[in-house]
Amino acid sequence: MFNKILIANRGEIALRVLRAAREMGIKVVVAHSEADSQSLPVLLADEAICIGAPPSAQSYLNIPNLLSAAIISGADAIHPGYGFLAENPQFAEMCREYGIVFIGPTPENMYSLGSKAGGREIAAKSNVPTVPGTGVLESVEEAVAAAEKIGYPVLLKASAGGGGRGQKVVRSSDEMRTAFVQAQQEAQNYFGDPALILEKFVELFRHVEVQVMGDGKGHVIHIGERDCSIQRRNQKLIEEAPSRLPEELRQEILAAGVRLAKYVNYQGAGTLEFIVDPEGNFYFMEMNTRIQVEHCVSEMISGLDFVKMQIRIAAGEPLDLQQEDVELNGHAIECRINAEDYEKDFRPSIGKVETLHFPGGPGVRVDSHLYAGYSIPPHYDSLVAKLIVHAPTREEAIDRMKRALGETVIEGPGVKTTVPFHLRVMDNAFYRRGAIFTNFVTTRMND
Amino acid sequence: MFNKILIANRGEIALRVLRAAREMGIKVVVAHSEADSQSLPVLLADEAICIGAPPSAQSYLNIPNLLSAAIISGADAIHPGYGFLAENPQFAEMCREYGIVFIGPTPENMYSLGSKAGGREIAAKSNVPTVPGTGVLESVEEAVAAAEKIGYPVLLKASAGGGGRGQKVVRSSDEMRTAFVQAQQEAQNYFGDPALILEKFVELFRHVEVQVMGDGKGHVIHIGERDCSIQRRNQKLIEEAPSRLPEELRQEILAAGVRLAKYVNYQGAGTLEFIVDPEGNFYFMEMNTRIQVEHCVSEMISGLDFVKMQIRIAAGEPLDLQQEDVELNGHAIECRINAEDYEKDFRPSIGKVETLHFPGGPGVRVDSHLYAGYSIPPHYDSLVAKLIVHAPTREEAIDRMKRALGETVIEGPGVKTTVPFHLRVMDNAFYRRGAIFTNFVTTRMND
Repeated sequence: MFNKILIANRGEIALRVLRAAREMGIKVVVAHSEADSQSLPVLLADEAICIGAPPSAQSYLNIPNLLSAAIISGADAIHPGYGFLAENPQFAEMCREYGIVFIGPTPENMYSLGSKAGGREIAAKSNVPTVPGTGVLESVEEAVAAAEKIGYPVLLKASAGGGGRGQKVVRSSDEMRTAFVQAQQEAQNYFGDPALILEKFVELFRHVEVQVMGDGKGHVIHIGERDCSIQRRNQKLIEEAPSRLPEELRQEILAAGVRLAKYVNYQGAGTLEFIVDPEGNFYFMEMNTRIQVEHCVSEMISGLDFVKMQIRIAAGEPLDLQQEDVELNGHAIECRINAEDYEKDFRPSIGKVETLHFPGGPGVRVDSHLYAGYSIPPHYDSLVAKLIVHAPTREEAIDRMKRALGETVIEGPGVKTTVPFHLRVMDNAFYRRGAIFTNFVTTRMND
Repeated sequence: MFNKILIANRGEIALRVLRAAREMGIKVVVAHSEADSQSLPVLLADEAICIGAPPSAQSYLNIPNLLSAAIISGADAIHPGYGFLAENPQFAEMCREYGIVFIGPTPENMYSLGSKAGGREIAAKSNVPTVPGTGVLESVEEAVAAAEKIGYPVLLKASAGGGGRGQKVVRSSDEMRTAFVQAQQEAQNYFGDPALILEKFVELFRHVEVQVMGDGKGHVIHIGERDCSIQRRNQKLIEEAPSRLPEELRQEILAAGVRLAKYVNYQGAGTLEFIVDPEGNFYFMEMNTRIQVEHCVSEMISGLDFVKMQIRIAAGEPLDLQQEDVELNGHAIECRINAEDYEKDFRPSIGKVETLHFPGGPGVRVDSHLYAGYSIPPHYDSLVAKLIVHAPTREEAIDRMKRALGETVIEGPGVKTTVPFHLRVMDNAFYRRGAIFTNFVTTRMND
């Protein structure tokens, strides 16, 4: 097992990894930007090393600084969290070259699955359905031709993308030229790669994703699926597990996920995202080759610790869990609490948290790097807390979430959060009866 | 179902009941003393009613005030929590007379099991072994005679007692007279009843208790057992579930617990406490006819909500859970965090909590009425937080508890807690390998 892990991330996921490592008796070095020197994972770490200034390019994406920090501190492994370098195969390769274990999939896994175009190809080879679409587009003319063949509306996507960023719905050939340039720019900005693909745009669908865990030697299991249909601008806001799909369809999707992950000999924790339309057709979207923000709901219903599993697999321990050993119980829901002003169109909110009180009691889990006195820095993602509940049924889980949200206090000058948004969703009749698609936030919040 | 529940208690258990009621859509009235007007359950309640001054006799034990508060506020049920009036059959009878549902066992259950003498009699009738002992003693002479027959050492116990209070070990007839008078006084002070019984004192044993749930109509199930052997002066400090008893013995004890509870047609949540000696003999000690502080560990491994179950049973809903439906998973540990100075022989510590930070992440549950700015009042039990962890194995649960304790901050002028004690236990080799008996704290803390 590792002696020391360097965490190349920040916020709640840095804390999440720290907790797992600490429980395993592994020392933790937190690499942090200048803006995060007073963050909770830094304060709780065995060691902390500043790796640069706030713009992430200079710190959390600064490979030389991160590798130097790992070498200087004597870390034998790096956990990348999610975002930043988590899905960067070059980084994983460089870790390998320097004899530092990258806690995640192999570079080969990432190369083959990291792009949307590559994912589509592997899906086809492993007999997993995808939305009708293209490989990487060479030009806007190619995009127009493909869209006419597939039929509008279509979706332009950054091939290197993830997390819903760099996506554009295009409803006619007139819109294509502007959309193409914008999407290319966004793709370049977010992912450093302007390559785009195009897919048929499925208007009404559920986002269902399969959690898998593989040992890199051919053994792959799933740990159930999640429904992440409550989104705003392609950003997930609320996730739950299990999904409310008919059991037969659910099993088909789970099997498809395992099949694809087995095809690439997947190592570590990964998530296969699917579109499920109202008729019960499902299409593979992409595989996220990392731990996800919403992994906690699957942890709650399985009783497993995915980050510990990632660490054990990366250290070469066998994945001794068989599919039939995975027992899923009850229902779990996660609300992402963002530092955003829900009343003002989710405008980002920063400031110092002066009063902080998180809920407790049965079936409540809080993953948050906040503490009273902490100043939310302006440079990063707005996620400040994940509130996760578990209960025997979905209805009870909703009631529990409502109760837990009601106990939550995150206050300070200028600090606003999405707690009021989540409270409204928990009371929404469509949500309560599970009649939710990805257009919920735009179409059903006022019902 | 009830419309409004009055909570006749304080601290973490008042909050626990409030949470259950709120999740069920039931309004909550918190009855509180003058000293608790700024307590968290009061601040979170739908309504709060002051029922008197701090000495509990004037407030939390003040039956007329509590019943008036229930009537005035229109509550249709009262939850007594634990301690105070939770096991007082007269109070339950008066609730019945006033048409208010007492959320707990029937007065008849409490009359038959509320005294240690009565408990011994029922155990004998339901074929559950008890430690050799007596009924209520009429005089010190009778105590001396009984002790000589049973053999020293013996244990004097308040017949009306519970929670280990009013107990005295007596090692010779010389010690009996003083011990008898002292135990009588303690029994009178704590329970308003000086009656004593006497039992053979088992020096080395594990405290194992069975959680049962009954519908009052003959259906009784167990929800596993707990080991509560880590005690100091008969006060439990750390509890876990399941116990580490051999499976056959474990099943025998569980069956004995259900048998006894069935014999009295038990209604609601209850706990049967057993002594288990190193040879694997077990003896029924007493039944606690209430929810217990340590119920949370059993909730964690079963995924059930015992307070909701209590409320549903009291409202006349059927207990539709069969024994085979109860699935227990993993291992849970609870550390009772008391406002006591561990370094100074657990001296009570009071003061204002200025900095408060509770742990989060996977498998961690916090039940606490603390908040930053709260002043711990001097009048009550020192329990300020329960830290509960759940993990697949006992070893992982210990590592998780250690991690969670390390994240815990409860600070303010003069405020000390038992967190350092618990951290030491988690590192103790005897504890880690489960070699624990009730003398652990006095004999094995320095090993």
